[in-house]
Amino acid sequence: MINIGLIGCGTVGSGVVKLLQKNSEVIAKRAGCRINIKKIAEIDAEKITNLALPEDIVTADINEILNAPDIDIVVELIGGLEPAYNYIMTAMHQGKHVVTANKDLIAVKSKEIFKLAADKNLDFCFEASVAGGIPVIYPLKHSLSANNINAVIGILNGTTNYILTKMTDQGQSLQEVLREAQALGYAEANPDADVAGLDAARKIAILSSIAFNSSVSLDDVYVEGILDVTPSDIEHARALGYVIKLLAIAEADERQQVQVRVHPAFIPKSHPIATVNDVYNAVFIHGDAVGDIMLYGRGAGQAPTASAVVGDIIEVARNTVQNVGRRVGCAFYGEKTVLNISELSTQYYIRMKVQDKPGVLASIAGVFGANRVSISTVLQPVSYGEWAELILITHKVKEQDLQESLLLLKDMSMVSAINSVIRVEGAEN
Amino acid sequence: MINIGLIGCGTVGSGVVKLLQKNSEVIAKRAGCRINIKKIAEIDAEKITNLALPEDIVTADINEILNAPDIDIVVELIGGLEPAYNYIMTAMHQGKHVVTANKDLIAVKSKEIFKLAADKNLDFCFEASVAGGIPVIYPLKHSLSANNINAVIGILNGTTNYILTKMTDQGQSLQEVLREAQALGYAEANPDADVAGLDAARKIAILSSIAFNSSVSLDDVYVEGILDVTPSDIEHARALGYVIKLLAIAEADERQQVQVRVHPAFIPKSHPIATVNDVYNAVFIHGDAVGDIMLYGRGAGQAPTASAVVGDIIEVARNTVQNVGRRVGCAFYGEKTVLNISELSTQYYIRMKVQDKPGVLASIAGVFGANRVSISTVLQPVSYGEWAELILITHKVKEQDLQESLLLLKDMSMVSAINSVIRVEGAEN
Repeated sequence: MINIGLIGCGTVGSGVVKLLQKNSEVIAKRAGCRINIKKIAEIDAEKITNLALPEDIVTADINEILNAPDIDIVVELIGGLEPAYNYIMTAMHQGKHVVTANKDLIAVKSKEIFKLAADKNLDFCFEASVAGGIPVIYPLKHSLSANNINAVIGILNGTTNYILTKMTDQGQSLQEVLREAQALGYAEANPDADVAGLDAARKIAILSSIAFNSSVSLDDVYVEGILDVTPSDIEHARALGYVIKLLAIAEADERQQVQVRVHPAFIPKSHPIATVNDVYNAVFIHGDAVGDIMLYGRGAGQAPTASAVVGDIIEVARNTVQNVGRRVGCAFYGEKTVLNISELSTQYYIRMKVQDKPGVLASIAGVFGANRVSISTVLQPVSYGEWAELILITHKVKEQDLQESLLLLKDMSMVSAINSVIRVEGAEN
Repeated sequence: MINIGLIGCGTVGSGVVKLLQKNSEVIAKRAGCRINIKKIAEIDAEKITNLALPEDIVTADINEILNAPDIDIVVELIGGLEPAYNYIMTAMHQGKHVVTANKDLIAVKSKEIFKLAADKNLDFCFEASVAGGIPVIYPLKHSLSANNINAVIGILNGTTNYILTKMTDQGQSLQEVLREAQALGYAEANPDADVAGLDAARKIAILSSIAFNSSVSLDDVYVEGILDVTPSDIEHARALGYVIKLLAIAEADERQQVQVRVHPAFIPKSHPIATVNDVYNAVFIHGDAVGDIMLYGRGAGQAPTASAVVGDIIEVARNTVQNVGRRVGCAFYGEKTVLNISELSTQYYIRMKVQDKPGVLASIAGVFGANRVSISTVLQPVSYGEWAELILITHKVKEQDLQESLLLLKDMSMVSAINSVIRVEGAEN
């Protein structure tokens, strides 16, 4: 029998308890032993009243878990940086394996945590921290381990994917959809971390660390949210054969350099990730041997997240039963350099308001050309009186060249406004 | 250092050699040791001339691998039942772990092989046997191990998916597309195992064995191929909001009964698996905790298959380095009953040629009704002279009731022919 101590019994924690209870037979067979919840650290004892657990299982004293000699695995589900970090490090110092769903923490402290786990020969598992129940971290560390991973492209935030899907299907504005999403419980009352791209940024930092065996932390990720995406941009994307998604992208080149970024992007309708809608998540991976694969499912929710947490618990239990201290860690032997966004080369969609008179397009094209930005597509401008809306898509160009062009264009009297600049992914090679 | 012996150096075998060479550094780091190809059993020594290997590595004598005391892992890549079965069993009797891509063998001999592996405490890994490089077997045994798996729905054969995709996109007949696919190398010169559904049947037998922890062999799988799918059916599917795919379906109910089948099926356009096109494969899984997930990628090809084989080799190497005899087997504690196809309940699309006169539809509906087959949708019949084409979709009904209705209808003078009967999946619950 393996004893676990649970820290936090909120939505995910109580999901873990329910899943361990519901599937206890099959879990015991697969783990090779019974998994017993020994203690739950939770200040609000009310939370466990509906969980068919003995009353004395709950404690407000974290040390009853961290110092308990008979607890093998600590399952941290309170989230956030502190006190979670302190609890996890203390648990490992006490020789306990750790399972967690804590993306906030791993996105900034993976180096320290992975190192202690390695030094102590302990398992540290966090499948639930990215994309809920979808197996992603485990496949990267196991099934795909023969590959050099070149790229990971994720839809890693259900709230923003729901919002963009509804904006696309119903032509509504972001604010309208956001209110609906909040009413349905798909968006938090304070949705900032989601719509600003921060949640996705944490997750791609974690995924790229695993994919590239190289430390990537939240600070390394360039982040743009979806607040500036308008129904007009979505409509133009559709007309041009694209959909707009909030993509989390990590790419590695052959010179040991990586680029990690989160931003709205045009992606061709025919790309597998373009069909991922509503609150679903997906991770698209390119490996040098396996080619393109995609892993798809629910990236959040009580039961899917519990599926990932309990899957990790079963893995650690198997290791413990077989007396393997830890089996596969997360070594950062890659030591890849993280590039600044200015080094990026990609395509761009640009929507701007310009004077509707002869020669304007030539002048604008001239500015782009002088800055090494070549244009792939220009839509027939739609005129409204003195002004016209100009939509264009560039070839693959350097971000820095693009930004310098835009600075120059903004100062030109014939340009009233640069309304939207959205990167275009997955089209040109 | 771990020594492997390779049996067979054809397309997959030479892919494995090349991948082990190309990514040797990262593989050594991930496995925790170097992986060394010690011997290759291959009758045609020519096959290794381009592989940058020492000449004496190749042997025509299988015993130089099976009896070699310093070979830890035998990698069987010749395929087929014999002599592969004999080699694998002998290797395990000699205490060697086995990695294979042999779907033909596992689909019929899993019971015997898994038992010997368990008795001998050896690893037996076969990720490459299903869906090429897509991680499927490993996630089922690990990341998803907290779930009771209710259903696995796969597009597991690239050739037939390519054919159906082209028929859908270009309105061509099966024979036309098949000839093109053969010219492109997407279909074998003898495509029988693919188009008859046998290849997909082997793979779903393997997947259901793992998903349900219960022995399912090829004989347990109901199989229909795609030969009878016509452009007309594809067009009607489109008009009704579906696409036609060759689906491999395994479902388990709460009474420990499973249903495993391969046949063409209508699937709603909005279903994630409906967007899987060309030679791509996908496995859609429903677990009681994780909900719906889908794993997508290339189901065949040298490099993707090698990715799966080498991934397995790395796993076994990790176990060997850590002195774990074997970590996770495939125990058949489920002992579920496999149901006959006659017990199936699903929806059906039916296309028939009937007399174009008043009362015919009422008579046909009467026959269905008397046999407990209720109709969900009837398309306005298209008349051509004396005859009309009648298209209908049933509600979920029992296969046996449907087949009895069809027998009766065939004998009626007002029915000239029952042209197509195709199951409809993923629409009604």
